[in-house]
Amino acid sequence: MNVSIDLTLIPLGKGTSLSRYIAACKKEIEKRGLDYELGPNGTAIEGEWNKVFECVKACHEVVHGLGVLRIYSSVKINSRVDSNKSFRDKVQSVNSYLSEQTS
Amino acid sequence: MNVSIDLTLIPLGKGTSLSRYIAACKKEIEKRGLDYELGPNGTAIEGEWNKVFECVKACHEVVHGLGVLRIYSSVKINSRVDSNKSFRDKVQSVNSYLSEQTS
Amino acid sequence: MNVSIDLTLIPLGKGTSLSRYIAACKKEIEKRGLDYELGPNGTAIEGEWNKVFECVKACHEVVHGLGVLRIYSSVKINSRVDSNKSFRDKVQSVNSYLSEQTS
Amino acid sequence: MNVSIDLTLIPLGKGTSLSRYIAACKKEIEKRGLDYELGPNGTAIEGEWNKVFECVKACHEVVHGLGVLRIYSSVKINSRVDSNKSFRDKVQSVNSYLSEQTS
Repeated sequence: MNVSIDLTLIPLGKGTSLSRYIAACKKEIEKRGLDYELGPNGTAIEGEWNKVFECVKACHEVVHGLGVLRIYSSVKINSRVDSNKSFRDKVQSVNSYLSEQTS
Repeated sequence: MNVSIDLTLIPLGKGTSLSRYIAACKKEIEKRGLDYELGPNGTAIEGEWNKVFECVKACHEVVHGLGVLRIYSSVKINSRVDSNKSFRDKVQSVNSYLSEQTS
Repeated sequence: MNVSIDLTLIPLGKGTSLSRYIAACKKEIEKRGLDYELGPNGTAIEGEWNKVFECVKACHEVVHGLGVLRIYSSVKINSRVDSNKSFRDKVQSVNSYLSEQTS
Repeated sequence: MNVSIDLTLIPLGKGTSLSRYIAACKKEIEKRGLDYELGPNGTAIEGEWNKVFECVKACHEVVHGLGVLRIYSSVKINSRVDSNKSFRDKVQSVNSYLSEQTS
């Protein structure tokens, strides 16, 4: 089963600049060859279910390894059996809908 | 590594009553002997990381098995290495703080 | 329009113990007479839409006032026009479904 | 107070294609002149607090107006008093951190 998630990882108690930790997660995602896209409020990650969630676990482990005692993550999980649209198609679907309406 | 999550699973395209699907997830959680608590807006689940996320996957699988073509889940993940407080302690921590203040 | 939300407020950069901040939010909710329930992973709040979101804003303001420079909140919003079920009915709906099945 | 949010709106009971509803929300955001960016898993919206949340309410109202009986939204709220970084700066912050490390 494939899955498309959006991961927002928040290290607690470590100041208000989080780039260092997001960068560490980015490396974990790339290491696994998962399709992903960094966004302003979360990272879209897509792939085989187990591989994607091993990556989420690895992100928590690597950020704890940087000295973060507590982590809060918010994960949106999309799974569907009626199509295999990628997260890359979603914004385009909305824009296509809008341009059909106005044409 | 232990983890404490909050799972909200939303079946798409299947009417507005979701109890049937939440009930199916509840069985998956109980089958695995994980500590949990059903809440109005999500289910708190706690245990060993891999076991908890196998359960999340099983919930998606069982709900797809009931004919749901698309699922959206929202998962909050709490991991910490500074204490092993259970989700059961959290509400009490807030109430203790409040009663200390007023005494 | 009524709305039922679940609010999880995370102060960044302020240690790993969050009870003090949740307690401050609890007072803002009570001050407004909104129906609410503290849970392990969020607080269910229910009432008239504008009143509920004024409360969310007040929670951010009061927590910034306690010296927190950055806040991340996760809010689940439930609105429906087919029924006026309270968040208090949701867990019972699932349990009723389960007991009907086994009887 | 300014605020930066990420809005994911899920209409329940209306099939698995959601573009029509996201498109309706997009119009509400544009009507108000708020800064925004459609993403694969949510829409980043930024501006004055009250204006942003009036927009969230308008999205719910317009989607109910399209015949949707129940809506579930997930909103991430970012507020900070230590900087006025836009959501547009966030991905760049991570990339800057990474390029500094490797140079």
